[in-house]
Amino acid sequence: MSPSFPLQSDEPATVGLIGFGAFGQLVARHMTPHVQVLAYDNRNSLEDTAQTLGVRLTDLTTVAHCRIIILAIPVQAMADVLTHIAPLLRPDALVLDVGSVKVKPTELMLRLLPPTVGIIGTHPLFGPQSAGQTTTGLKIVLCPVRGPYHRLAAFLRKTLGLRVLICTPEKHDQDMAVTQALTHWLAQSLKTLEPFPSHLTTRSFDLMRDAMKMVEKDAPQVFETIECLNPYASSMRKHYLDLLSSLDKKLDTLTPA
Amino acid sequence: MSPSFPLQSDEPATVGLIGFGAFGQLVARHMTPHVQVLAYDNRNSLEDTAQTLGVRLTDLTTVAHCRIIILAIPVQAMADVLTHIAPLLRPDALVLDVGSVKVKPTELMLRLLPPTVGIIGTHPLFGPQSAGQTTTGLKIVLCPVRGPYHRLAAFLRKTLGLRVLICTPEKHDQDMAVTQALTHWLAQSLKTLEPFPSHLTTRSFDLMRDAMKMVEKDAPQVFETIECLNPYASSMRKHYLDLLSSLDKKLDTLTPA
Repeated sequence: MSPSFPLQSDEPATVGLIGFGAFGQLVARHMTPHVQVLAYDNRNSLEDTAQTLGVRLTDLTTVAHCRIIILAIPVQAMADVLTHIAPLLRPDALVLDVGSVKVKPTELMLRLLPPTVGIIGTHPLFGPQSAGQTTTGLKIVLCPVRGPYHRLAAFLRKTLGLRVLICTPEKHDQDMAVTQALTHWLAQSLKTLEPFPSHLTTRSFDLMRDAMKMVEKDAPQVFETIECLNPYASSMRKHYLDLLSSLDKKLDTLTPA
Repeated sequence: MSPSFPLQSDEPATVGLIGFGAFGQLVARHMTPHVQVLAYDNRNSLEDTAQTLGVRLTDLTTVAHCRIIILAIPVQAMADVLTHIAPLLRPDALVLDVGSVKVKPTELMLRLLPPTVGIIGTHPLFGPQSAGQTTTGLKIVLCPVRGPYHRLAAFLRKTLGLRVLICTPEKHDQDMAVTQALTHWLAQSLKTLEPFPSHLTTRSFDLMRDAMKMVEKDAPQVFETIECLNPYASSMRKHYLDLLSSLDKKLDTLTPA
């Protein structure tokens, strides 16, 4: 039986959210107006937040039995969680992750989940800091791995107003090695130079500073995921280091003694 | 006789502009509504532009005899031009430059200009690309070196609406080694990685890209000035390179094999 996104008239839509941290809560906020959301998190003291967002916190077995499962957990925890939930899943389940890298999570899902289960890697290109009250116009990447994905894409587009970008996990990680890994690495290093001049700044520096502020509050685990679990990030950093170093040397030869 | 900004009622204000390139034209555009501007440039075919801006192009001797002289020339050409104009200046002249670095130009002006001449280093923190039709709210740095500067500061504030920042040439170049030299060097190196992913971008990368676009069209000479004629730029680049390299190594140790 091929998995399908259960927003069909013959079945009440229920989403099981595994992980109810900052990102899980963001997912919940935008899903609960449209579908019922059950969530599991091994941390305590999330009841108030769950109630506010209209989410029912319950045990992992119940959550894992939903038709759609969204893994809002660190990529570092994914192998363990997948191994744990694999026997609990319905044969027609659809499993999504929301990690910042896509090659490794999709490989793990393919390897560890039962063969009838649908798999779609997703990467919302926004987070609790950049998504305001609405998701309209924000971007999400879908990496369809197994089973249909058009129903999900249509829901994200039409109901949540997202811009849906479809690509392979490899293409995702290659592009993100530039647009995400370089940016975060530059920002984390630049942070070390603080405090910055506050008055003598140019417009271009102000923009760089704004970019930096957006990523510098990311959890250390998110930074590590972006840099260490993207198979293209390390070589991209070294390539850019070489470019910077060459240009630095060239500039030194042009500098009067 | 101490130099003063000649916007006094007893004397018609005339500004002599040496250099009528992109930046000289920007200066002229914002000065001609308020003062008469004479300009000298050793390049031809600038008559139409001058006429449009209400500027009279004339010989260097005439321009150098104005009460206020603005040097809108590359820092690289400054020693030659200063040597040439020094004997042509009025004893009560006020000489300003508009270079992107301040230690070197102010040292040259102090060394090469007659001792009665007023000297103020300036750095407008905007350029033909970032200044639109108005200068209101844009920033300009003043480094007063010799003679009064309050009249000029008041004119820039009240008449042009600029935010005037006063500091020493050393403080200017130290701050700019971070906010300008790092930014431009990162941008010029990043440019080598083009074409960039056009769809799979994050908001923070888009901001970085915008910052880059603002500086990547700068003339090579401007880039060289910022990097090679700021005495603090080279060591700042190396310091940031070390930070990037250390973080890269640390990330590699955290990367699963």
